[in-house]
Amino acid sequence: MISRRGTLFVVSAPSGAGKTTLCREMRLRLHDLAYSVSVTTRAPRPGEIRGSDFHFVSPSEFQAMLGRGELAEWATVHTNLYGTPAAPLEAALRGGRDVLLDIDTQGAAQLRARYPEAVLIFIVAPSMGELEQRLRERRSDGEHEIARRLERARDEVTLWRRYDYLIVNRDVKEAMEQLEAIIQAERCRVARLALTFPDLEVPN
Amino acid sequence: MISRRGTLFVVSAPSGAGKTTLCREMRLRLHDLAYSVSVTTRAPRPGEIRGSDFHFVSPSEFQAMLGRGELAEWATVHTNLYGTPAAPLEAALRGGRDVLLDIDTQGAAQLRARYPEAVLIFIVAPSMGELEQRLRERRSDGEHEIARRLERARDEVTLWRRYDYLIVNRDVKEAMEQLEAIIQAERCRVARLALTFPDLEVPN
Repeated sequence: MISRRGTLFVVSAPSGAGKTTLCREMRLRLHDLAYSVSVTTRAPRPGEIRGSDFHFVSPSEFQAMLGRGELAEWATVHTNLYGTPAAPLEAALRGGRDVLLDIDTQGAAQLRARYPEAVLIFIVAPSMGELEQRLRERRSDGEHEIARRLERARDEVTLWRRYDYLIVNRDVKEAMEQLEAIIQAERCRVARLALTFPDLEVPN
Repeated sequence: MISRRGTLFVVSAPSGAGKTTLCREMRLRLHDLAYSVSVTTRAPRPGEIRGSDFHFVSPSEFQAMLGRGELAEWATVHTNLYGTPAAPLEAALRGGRDVLLDIDTQGAAQLRARYPEAVLIFIVAPSMGELEQRLRERRSDGEHEIARRLERARDEVTLWRRYDYLIVNRDVKEAMEQLEAIIQAERCRVARLALTFPDLEVPN
């Protein structure tokens, strides 16, 4: 095997579009995919596992990490801070592993600036009505929070053109297949392979 | 459904890399894929179906089609002429159907020039030794023809950087999955969807 640099896959979506489920399932399906555990100042939701779903830290711990330049991206979402530790991410890419990141739109823009070769994937619900229904079914937010998430989704959905790929999540199985197809296809891209193979060498 | 323009997928490979089998199987798997039947002056091989595998024509008929500007690309391969009728290809793309073309490297370069948004896919055998073995197993060529095909393959394989995607055909099942992933992923590309959706409209 010729060692190649890993590819960074960044998945963003307005809340309720199904991003978290898709990323979790994709990690189960593609075992060679590395992922990054984000740092957040928000409180754990029921069922979330510390150090696996998120590193939960205090606002002052978060500020200290930022001050030491330890975050590849960070963002404020609904008054909470979220960030991606840079060191494990870059170690995985250098080691030739592809990385799947589940990141909001602000963080995705920072990652694009820092890693121009990253692959940005945007997931949307098939309609705003469907999005509202999913947020209600989740039962983790009150009316005020649901209204805020919907307003934010309406703004965020206009950002789809900044991404490389768009997945309309009508059906989880279909959306999973599209996400997997994007990852598999990018692994065949000549523009990426050409970074690995020396000038006159061919993979034959 | 918003009507979108179809995408042209062009598959090339040195002979023996498995291109014909892959394209045939992909047409069976993805029924919505249109394909083009090439015109050729070469003699039919055993099992080939007239009008389905190729339109078999005389050299003078071929020249007449060329003269009338009826071919989207054409090429000389092993003293035979091959070409793609332009009209059915363009009708399919205008109608929003994706098209899969099985075209040699000379023809692919002409298609790239004529349709810059086409997706070019290059398939190679895992090694020259493997390629030679496959050509022998095919039993359709004599020693001289096999030597000529191998020499040509050695030249052609260096052209992989002109393509968008590279599939190393180690295993037909794996190569099929990669080809299907490329087609599915390209259908999610924002650069293609942005041609379809009006400026401020979002697919939501």
